Amino acid sequence: MTRLSFNISMSLDGFITGPDPGPEQPLGAGGDQLHEWGVKLASWREAHGLEGGEVSADSEVLEETMSAAGSTIMGRSMFGGGDGPWGDDPWQGWWGEEPPFGVPVFVLTHHPREPLVLKGTTFTFVTDGIESALDQAKAAAGDRDVALAGGADVFQQYLGAGLVDEFQLHVVPLLLGDGVRLFDDGAGAGVQVEPDRVIESPAVTHIRYRVVR
Amino acid sequence: MTRLSFNISMSLDGFITGPDPGPEQPLGAGGDQLHEWGVKLASWREAHGLEGGEVSADSEVLEETMSAAGSTIMGRSMFGGGDGPWGDDPWQGWWGEEPPFGVPVFVLTHHPREPLVLKGTTFTFVTDGIESALDQAKAAAGDRDVALAGGADVFQQYLGAGLVDEFQLHVVPLLLGDGVRLFDDGAGAGVQVEPDRVIESPAVTHIRYRVVR
Repeated sequence: MTRLSFNISMSLDGFITGPDPGPEQPLGAGGDQLHEWGVKLASWREAHGLEGGEVSADSEVLEETMSAAGSTIMGRSMFGGGDGPWGDDPWQGWWGEEPPFGVPVFVLTHHPREPLVLKGTTFTFVTDGIESALDQAKAAAGDRDVALAGGADVFQQYLGAGLVDEFQLHVVPLLLGDGVRLFDDGAGAGVQVEPDRVIESPAVTHIRYRVVR
Repeated sequence: MTRLSFNISMSLDGFITGPDPGPEQPLGAGGDQLHEWGVKLASWREAHGLEGGEVSADSEVLEETMSAAGSTIMGRSMFGGGDGPWGDDPWQGWWGEEPPFGVPVFVLTHHPREPLVLKGTTFTFVTDGIESALDQAKAAAGDRDVALAGGADVFQQYLGAGLVDEFQLHVVPLLLGDGVRLFDDGAGAGVQVEPDRVIESPAVTHIRYRVVR
């Protein structure tokens, strides 16, 4: 059965960006450090058209995550900032000519737009809510999973609505002090979860949780 | 060498109490769930004068933690609420006639008071700051470690001052939504840490971090 899963790098103090995220630094000040464990890996580099990189327990986790996804859901901010109207010459987001997804991506937004077809990835813009996006993403995922890509607010909405099946936190040994919290006050309170796998490395601790219904 | 170490149960969303902690519920609403993994263990029960209980990977972690401590530092709130003057008939804190520490305890406070000698545990009240308390606790610890008992504010002060050597988070699969955050905004930002051990069980994930200097 197709599940909705979420993978995210989070600092030890609970942040998924550093302070002051914005168009010039989507991950905030110092937030790039959250992804250092990933970008040096062979599995990440291959997905981004690069050769080389490390092979380790971390790369297996990342490879598993990427290969499990048959489709992806993300918020408008993660696609490319803001939530204003698209305008006459809508831009193509932050992901370049050849986005690293390689699967259908469903973007939650309040503003209708025709699908954007780029090399290997089609972005479909969904204006009628998170359940509709999930239905469309499940239909597109085949027998693989739907990956929730973020951001935190989108995760919180799906988690609070009881629609997330599992999530894996890549806990990075980093104290950012400020930024966007994955679990902002009240998010997911009372949702029942169980850890079902822990994989450790010097760079990061991967804890996977299953939501209990 | 005597180290300063800190062990704490923290919810997945970063809280060490539930909502609205106060004299009637020191751990806040639902906060007792943070310690369920511990109180059912043989090692916890033995320290509290009780028989029976479970023996598991978790109980080994707890036993190790308790036996490593040669002395303890805590904040005034953890000793017994508030930070007002002690009065003529100062009360003996929240820990009963036979506190579960069994080692010298140094309590940070702004109000001087003579040491309180209870069965197995002497509380010494320190008014001249965190470094003085650490010096006294180290002198009392012999060749064992100094355990920082909390709360979050005391941990944040020691961590920010570069005085913590290691800390272990017992990450409980629980979303409390609100309460006292272990890492409040800005706490410990920029302190360099490395994970040096992870032990997992269905009930809790123990991640130990070493502070890098």
